[in-house]
Amino acid sequence: MPGARVRVGVLGATGYSGVELLRLLATHPGVELAYLSSEQYRGRAVSDVHPFLAGIVDAKLEAPEPDAVAAAADVVFTALPHGAASAVVAALVRRGRRVLDLSADFRLHDPAVYARWYGEHAAPELLKEAVYGLPELHRDRIRGARLVACPGCYPTGALLGIVPLARAGLIREPVVVDAKSGTTGAGRGARVEQLFAEVNENFRPYSIGTHRHQPEIEQELRTAGASAPIVFVPHLLPVSRGILTTIYARVSGGTPSLAALYEKTYAKEPFVILRGDGAPPELRDVRGTNRCVLGWRWDAASATAIVVTAIDNLGKGAAGQAVQCFNLMHGFPETTGLEAPALAP
Amino acid sequence: MPGARVRVGVLGATGYSGVELLRLLATHPGVELAYLSSEQYRGRAVSDVHPFLAGIVDAKLEAPEPDAVAAAADVVFTALPHGAASAVVAALVRRGRRVLDLSADFRLHDPAVYARWYGEHAAPELLKEAVYGLPELHRDRIRGARLVACPGCYPTGALLGIVPLARAGLIREPVVVDAKSGTTGAGRGARVEQLFAEVNENFRPYSIGTHRHQPEIEQELRTAGASAPIVFVPHLLPVSRGILTTIYARVSGGTPSLAALYEKTYAKEPFVILRGDGAPPELRDVRGTNRCVLGWRWDAASATAIVVTAIDNLGKGAAGQAVQCFNLMHGFPETTGLEAPALAP
Amino acid sequence: MPGARVRVGVLGATGYSGVELLRLLATHPGVELAYLSSEQYRGRAVSDVHPFLAGIVDAKLEAPEPDAVAAAADVVFTALPHGAASAVVAALVRRGRRVLDLSADFRLHDPAVYARWYGEHAAPELLKEAVYGLPELHRDRIRGARLVACPGCYPTGALLGIVPLARAGLIREPVVVDAKSGTTGAGRGARVEQLFAEVNENFRPYSIGTHRHQPEIEQELRTAGASAPIVFVPHLLPVSRGILTTIYARVSGGTPSLAALYEKTYAKEPFVILRGDGAPPELRDVRGTNRCVLGWRWDAASATAIVVTAIDNLGKGAAGQAVQCFNLMHGFPETTGLEAPALAP
Amino acid sequence: MPGARVRVGVLGATGYSGVELLRLLATHPGVELAYLSSEQYRGRAVSDVHPFLAGIVDAKLEAPEPDAVAAAADVVFTALPHGAASAVVAALVRRGRRVLDLSADFRLHDPAVYARWYGEHAAPELLKEAVYGLPELHRDRIRGARLVACPGCYPTGALLGIVPLARAGLIREPVVVDAKSGTTGAGRGARVEQLFAEVNENFRPYSIGTHRHQPEIEQELRTAGASAPIVFVPHLLPVSRGILTTIYARVSGGTPSLAALYEKTYAKEPFVILRGDGAPPELRDVRGTNRCVLGWRWDAASATAIVVTAIDNLGKGAAGQAVQCFNLMHGFPETTGLEAPALAP
Repeated sequence: MPGARVRVGVLGATGYSGVELLRLLATHPGVELAYLSSEQYRGRAVSDVHPFLAGIVDAKLEAPEPDAVAAAADVVFTALPHGAASAVVAALVRRGRRVLDLSADFRLHDPAVYARWYGEHAAPELLKEAVYGLPELHRDRIRGARLVACPGCYPTGALLGIVPLARAGLIREPVVVDAKSGTTGAGRGARVEQLFAEVNENFRPYSIGTHRHQPEIEQELRTAGASAPIVFVPHLLPVSRGILTTIYARVSGGTPSLAALYEKTYAKEPFVILRGDGAPPELRDVRGTNRCVLGWRWDAASATAIVVTAIDNLGKGAAGQAVQCFNLMHGFPETTGLEAPALAP
Repeated sequence: MPGARVRVGVLGATGYSGVELLRLLATHPGVELAYLSSEQYRGRAVSDVHPFLAGIVDAKLEAPEPDAVAAAADVVFTALPHGAASAVVAALVRRGRRVLDLSADFRLHDPAVYARWYGEHAAPELLKEAVYGLPELHRDRIRGARLVACPGCYPTGALLGIVPLARAGLIREPVVVDAKSGTTGAGRGARVEQLFAEVNENFRPYSIGTHRHQPEIEQELRTAGASAPIVFVPHLLPVSRGILTTIYARVSGGTPSLAALYEKTYAKEPFVILRGDGAPPELRDVRGTNRCVLGWRWDAASATAIVVTAIDNLGKGAAGQAVQCFNLMHGFPETTGLEAPALAP
Repeated sequence: MPGARVRVGVLGATGYSGVELLRLLATHPGVELAYLSSEQYRGRAVSDVHPFLAGIVDAKLEAPEPDAVAAAADVVFTALPHGAASAVVAALVRRGRRVLDLSADFRLHDPAVYARWYGEHAAPELLKEAVYGLPELHRDRIRGARLVACPGCYPTGALLGIVPLARAGLIREPVVVDAKSGTTGAGRGARVEQLFAEVNENFRPYSIGTHRHQPEIEQELRTAGASAPIVFVPHLLPVSRGILTTIYARVSGGTPSLAALYEKTYAKEPFVILRGDGAPPELRDVRGTNRCVLGWRWDAASATAIVVTAIDNLGKGAAGQAVQCFNLMHGFPETTGLEAPALAP
Repeated sequence: MPGARVRVGVLGATGYSGVELLRLLATHPGVELAYLSSEQYRGRAVSDVHPFLAGIVDAKLEAPEPDAVAAAADVVFTALPHGAASAVVAALVRRGRRVLDLSADFRLHDPAVYARWYGEHAAPELLKEAVYGLPELHRDRIRGARLVACPGCYPTGALLGIVPLARAGLIREPVVVDAKSGTTGAGRGARVEQLFAEVNENFRPYSIGTHRHQPEIEQELRTAGASAPIVFVPHLLPVSRGILTTIYARVSGGTPSLAALYEKTYAKEPFVILRGDGAPPELRDVRGTNRCVLGWRWDAASATAIVVTAIDNLGKGAAGQAVQCFNLMHGFPETTGLEAPALAP
């Protein structure tokens, strides 16, 4: 890797997305980890909080103070809670730093929609500028972005499956998105419902019709030409990582050529693996990676395209995708630091 | 419990459904376990194969020989593999024994449909007579049946959710049945794909559009008045027990009163627990029980009824339901031997 | 079951031990659940907090107010946190109620030892009177007790294995107690280290040499005649229920007859299952039960008795054992309400 | 990495150790994967058997034919079953190829000991020459070896903990080795006892006093100066990867300086991470890595050193360690290809 390393800051470095960023960036040849923050563990070494990083990333955790961050880092990944991110992000952008935000704060372009789902926005002026960080949809705009709003984990799994159908004009009836996620998607906060004994040997739907990722999916599908609502039901899996999304899209007007459609769309994508004829996607195909494995089947009796995607919610659904965007922004080959095969089993 | 105990045989007593029958029948006050069979472990004590039964059921495992079975038992539960069950069941019926068959061999009434999914049937003359053993649908016929074909686990979870809609004439468009099952549904055979390290931390769909439970669901839905196909995708969960089924049914002609419909249908059912307003059904609500927990939500934007059911695939999905049918056949209160609360956590 | 039911109170009814008490007592033929308390969920129905109890125990959760409890209940199970229990227990005893306390507050007879591990005691006058509620050791005293201090989960698994050796005078060298517990042993409090993603696919020792169950084990071993310390290392298993304890005891003076020793000690015990020659104890043998499965092996090269016990930490390690003590106190057959086989798989 | 890549063969490439070798070697900058074999899946692409390798390793699986292997590869990793490996390994060595054998076939130097635990050896003449592939013990001999016998997973975890004590002359009394392993240690064969529903929510000891790794541990401990037997009890954990070993060693003659001992022994070791004062080792610290995390505590009351080690049984316990040896043999920096942080969570 020629030239100097990019000085990188990671704010919120001890949550699940933050620590996954560290895991990926620690071996990225173009990155110098220059500033790590944590409100909760400020003053401790990050490898004291996450001992698996001992000898790999031992830096001290600082406060997420914009001046200090801007002084130390050229580009900043913010993995702060929704609502808390926007003010810090805006302060960093004002100081001329490029930001990749992993919160939901800049994903919705319409302030009114944001307000309906999250409340008042602290920096609405940036909503229009922020680029939705799904490289397979917005690669060129990401390259030049000052502010990348990294997609939610559920939207990533849903959009990679549905957008090709939408762009082909095939989404005119409601699409069912039945999604199943591992627990790290809910973050590292201490809550009874996330205790091992509450999740283990259990499985449940939640937030039916009220999940905040729904407007995000709808925004991007509308952009892609869909003219029908989605029916979105997330479920909680007893696994640590991974989202498998099963999509049911009724298509009128004859049998679509799903194979041709997906093959054309994703022919040159390094992180979308097609599995048309083979075994359906599984979570273990993607654990620890930035991959999205995608399979499909046409059900003639009901005129329904069944599409299945698998991603790692911390990888392609969060930190991996952010690193992919970072590579685009800084001219690195898009797969840099993201080459490791899945950990299987 | 007045009078003598019913002498009961269990054939295929060491598979997951068989041993769950033993677990339930061991404490059933109206049952004497009179004959247990296992091809694989013949000659050993069942508590040697399944040590948790030590001191509870220690009987020796015999061969599934019809004359011996008919001599020892008044009623027989057959938990043999599909295909292997039909000849034994027919032999027992010919000898005047009542049979509850947990295999798929007598669930489909139409020999042609059976042949298409399973091959030639060994006793097609019994297909019409066999009663589909879902008490909530066919209680009266079960009471007098000679042969009860206990439903598959997936059909139980799907039908209890969809049949009320079908009977109300609301199923005129394809219904999506997205089902997620624990691994005991696949049986206790040694297969690589069922090894711990293949299932753990993993999740995957399988048999999309080709699962043998699909014609069984369709048969019962047609009987209930549905005029549209189902789209059925089963998935494998990393849990030992439980099926959660998420059903998506588009309904035209205005908002249906789902609460009224389900409350009326299941008002007197001891094993169907409604969860309309509260938390959605979860697998832990039903583990070890014969319950089906059922919740629903109307999605107005897409005119879709979202219905969720949770059962234990070995309980209401297999052995528990068989015991419920047995209670009906022998005049016991329907909940006898099935009263234990779920094991949670 | 002759006569009226015993009116029973359960304080701390929504924690893991409390809800397991409800699960067991709900089907106990001699019990009327008369008073349930929860600080955290006061005013809600218990089946709202734990939906699996819907239709089984739907009572409202009250405050743990001694006068109200004493008015409603003849006997009280207290499953309150350590430290919080002692004052309530003392108040109930003063009001003439018999108490089974599942906390650690009355397990140590010596106030000085208690103070060293837990701090000042709120009712030290009861420490001498409280009977250590391990029926296999103190059955007769439990029958007449006003206050039963139910043993900790680790001590139960360790003592049932070691006490027979100690009583035979064989414990003269340090005994290694390597114990592995499911997560419910740590309670239902919201803590990061108990989150699913922190426990799943993980395994770790903790509190090496500093666990509060150590003095409890040592107290009872001294009473049984042991003259050597124990080396106790607990570990956290990624399972919800169960403790497996592997005990290593060096024995001098020739090969002991372990089979004879354990067979004689436990010949009449309904809940101790010996597994001398067969497969070693496993957690699944005991899940949901009050059983302790016990196996052993003599290692001649090192003159070491290897003893393995398996219990359900919520069953024989907590609520089950408390019900067993309750049965003794009230003249019920000792196994009443505890007959259900393990849930396997 | 200057110069040509080493042409590498992997025999038995689809078992858990074999596929872990592929995962590691696929991104090793000095390796060209030149020959992959599988008896079971011969003729298929390895990425067809293990889809997570799609686009990473897609080579066809061949037969393990020595002439073909020797023609294609300069060095060969053999991950064949015990017993099956020895003949193939000997044939490759005769053809001048260097071999890293992951089976047990060349770990025991004494043919009589081998015969007692495994039966007749097919190539006993190589037993003395084979170097035991634990770099922390035998680094220099590994560098020049023709045949490296990669250690078993349990011995690796035990020896790294005990050898420093043995070399210091402190092992004069029996040492307890209580080890807990994930299921991949048992291989990928289809066996009922390894099914998900048999392992999940379960935990059990096995092969007490009869496990084949015991003589391997004893051989290396004797070499290191130990003069006492070990008491070895392996247990099966419901996790896919990892071994945690808790070691109890009584030490006479005063308090040993454990910190000084371990710090001196492992000061320059890149893969041994000491955790003296901090949190004890956990499996998640090492998942997917070649690390051994080691902690200790002195229990004064019993004069016992408690030592805990954590490794990934497929990493430092198998494929990772083999790659470490390969690096030594071929002059690569010892950490090449083994730098990735653990996958946590």
